[in-house]
Amino acid sequence: MSFKIPKNLRIPGPTPCPDYVLEAMGQDMINHRGPEFQDMIKRTTEGLKSIFQTSNDVFILTASGTGAMEAAVVNTLSPGDTVLSVSIGVFGDRLGQIAETYGANVIKFTTTWGTAADPNDVKKVLDDNPNIKAVIVTHNETSTGVTNDMAAISKVVKDADKLLLVDAISSLSSLPFYTDEWGCDVVMSGSQKGYMIPPGLAFVSVSERAWEASKEATMPRFYWDFGRAKSYLERGQTPWTPAVSIFYALDVALQGMFKEGMENVFQRHIDLANKTRAGIKNLGLELFADETHASNTVTAIKVPEGVNGGDLAKRMQSDHDVVLGGGQGSLTGKIFRIGHLGHVYEEDISIVLSALEDVLPKIGFNG
Amino acid sequence: MSFKIPKNLRIPGPTPCPDYVLEAMGQDMINHRGPEFQDMIKRTTEGLKSIFQTSNDVFILTASGTGAMEAAVVNTLSPGDTVLSVSIGVFGDRLGQIAETYGANVIKFTTTWGTAADPNDVKKVLDDNPNIKAVIVTHNETSTGVTNDMAAISKVVKDADKLLLVDAISSLSSLPFYTDEWGCDVVMSGSQKGYMIPPGLAFVSVSERAWEASKEATMPRFYWDFGRAKSYLERGQTPWTPAVSIFYALDVALQGMFKEGMENVFQRHIDLANKTRAGIKNLGLELFADETHASNTVTAIKVPEGVNGGDLAKRMQSDHDVVLGGGQGSLTGKIFRIGHLGHVYEEDISIVLSALEDVLPKIGFNG
Repeated sequence: MSFKIPKNLRIPGPTPCPDYVLEAMGQDMINHRGPEFQDMIKRTTEGLKSIFQTSNDVFILTASGTGAMEAAVVNTLSPGDTVLSVSIGVFGDRLGQIAETYGANVIKFTTTWGTAADPNDVKKVLDDNPNIKAVIVTHNETSTGVTNDMAAISKVVKDADKLLLVDAISSLSSLPFYTDEWGCDVVMSGSQKGYMIPPGLAFVSVSERAWEASKEATMPRFYWDFGRAKSYLERGQTPWTPAVSIFYALDVALQGMFKEGMENVFQRHIDLANKTRAGIKNLGLELFADETHASNTVTAIKVPEGVNGGDLAKRMQSDHDVVLGGGQGSLTGKIFRIGHLGHVYEEDISIVLSALEDVLPKIGFNG
Repeated sequence: MSFKIPKNLRIPGPTPCPDYVLEAMGQDMINHRGPEFQDMIKRTTEGLKSIFQTSNDVFILTASGTGAMEAAVVNTLSPGDTVLSVSIGVFGDRLGQIAETYGANVIKFTTTWGTAADPNDVKKVLDDNPNIKAVIVTHNETSTGVTNDMAAISKVVKDADKLLLVDAISSLSSLPFYTDEWGCDVVMSGSQKGYMIPPGLAFVSVSERAWEASKEATMPRFYWDFGRAKSYLERGQTPWTPAVSIFYALDVALQGMFKEGMENVFQRHIDLANKTRAGIKNLGLELFADETHASNTVTAIKVPEGVNGGDLAKRMQSDHDVVLGGGQGSLTGKIFRIGHLGHVYEEDISIVLSALEDVLPKIGFNG
């Protein structure tokens, strides 16, 4: 390779991969319509169902997480459908934009960035707009480091008897998520997050109710079509040539996660987030997100007075081989983010905190 | 891994990968919005332009080849547009289906499978239907092992002043292709073919005329939107998280191809195809495709009388570790296919031919 792989990649995805995942990625190709792939897709689909906590159908798409978002929308909705978009950041906005692009009538519910959606406020919008057909909502908003209370939001949505499409891209496999218990009709997830594998696969679950909706849904769909995905999965295949290497990675990563135990995985993410938030405050920095809903997969931190966010990122990489996430959209330059999801451990967070302690005073921080 | 990687994967994609590609695939992650990725996407995009023989924009999408097909259609067309679909097999049909799914009025031009499209016949349809806006056509039809005469077909299409969208998924990088000389407005390609890298990336080129068409085109697009791809590429990024590992692979594979020299790559594919066709006939088997247009990347062979196609595939794998391609669609069980594109050399073809010579008499062949 013509460049150096950073030792401390602390962005909220792609996340670093364990050695056994990288080894799997380096395996040569098999026939994606042969028996080995059939076994692998069955095994990985079952593994994902366990992580999604669902008995619904689960499909593996060759795409970024955004592809799963588009798939969720176009398989269940028709142009002219009224959709409530509960957005608390860049990725929530994106999901709403996709629905609008395909002709949905989107009612936008937003909060001050850095805060979560209040389920009571969501209920009010639902009460005021009985024509809403579906609610699209982000579980964990990567751009602000905030986790919505999905148990409470899903209850409000299900009490109102609406279709519920949930972006759980940066939460599923790192934070507990109960697809069936919460009544989530389509749940979206992506490989490069808590799964500890490279980007290129996206995962979706599809409930009975979502299948019913898909029968009426007239948004055009081909590549993203759940019906095709289902009929091919019955044969142990995908409709289109899959990213075989990332299936290899998923296969071994799921085994790794189950070996660690999902409860232990979740606890590790809680511990990492607590350590990160405590350490950040200890350095005299200010958390961006409302701490009552701060994410356990990514921490957003205000760029302190007197410091340039670009300088911070550069010095962290040049001096300590630590790569941080920047702010996105209107938060560019105003926050920086530390990803702590997937293949991350306490010592990794210690390295970031020590590096910040070293770099910040050198670039104008007087905290 | 819980399964064996076949030594002789002779399907027309995914193709086997050289060791240096597999090594690249096993590298850990970088920030897809950082300087290393910026350098890599610039380098790989330039490399692809050279292979596409184009000065048009080229974009790298995280998707299967079918994603590139959908992108080509939705970025340039509107519902109600009349489109001529020149299909000579399964993949040609697919491109037409995508256009239909999004509301195009598709005129279907087909040939007997195994034969190429006659440019004069295409001209006649264009003359008879002046309302045609675009022509969609397959360069190399993987399902039948036939290569269309793109120089002649593109001339007819350009003489009629139509938009030209070409599926070159299984030809580009293995067969000479002249995007600009032929006036191709959108050309589609996929990583798992001649590029010798795993599936998961798709490539598209976009001409000035295609950009003009995109301004008027009203088919909905978000994930596939060329406009977003262009604005992000200007910053050395992709709009959605890219399949980073496959970029690593593409980066080194392009270097490998340029080192071999594209003229040598093309000649190797000609030699492999000639050896395959001669060997097949020598075994007493019959080629499926019209030999005047037989593909130099994949050879389709009729399953001989008295032989079951499924048995053939199984015995070739169990006895010789050779994985063949089967027939698709209405050709299932009627043909089998030998892929000879990408990282394939003469000895690989010898192995397949010897294996066929051994297996065929054992499963009922009396040729």
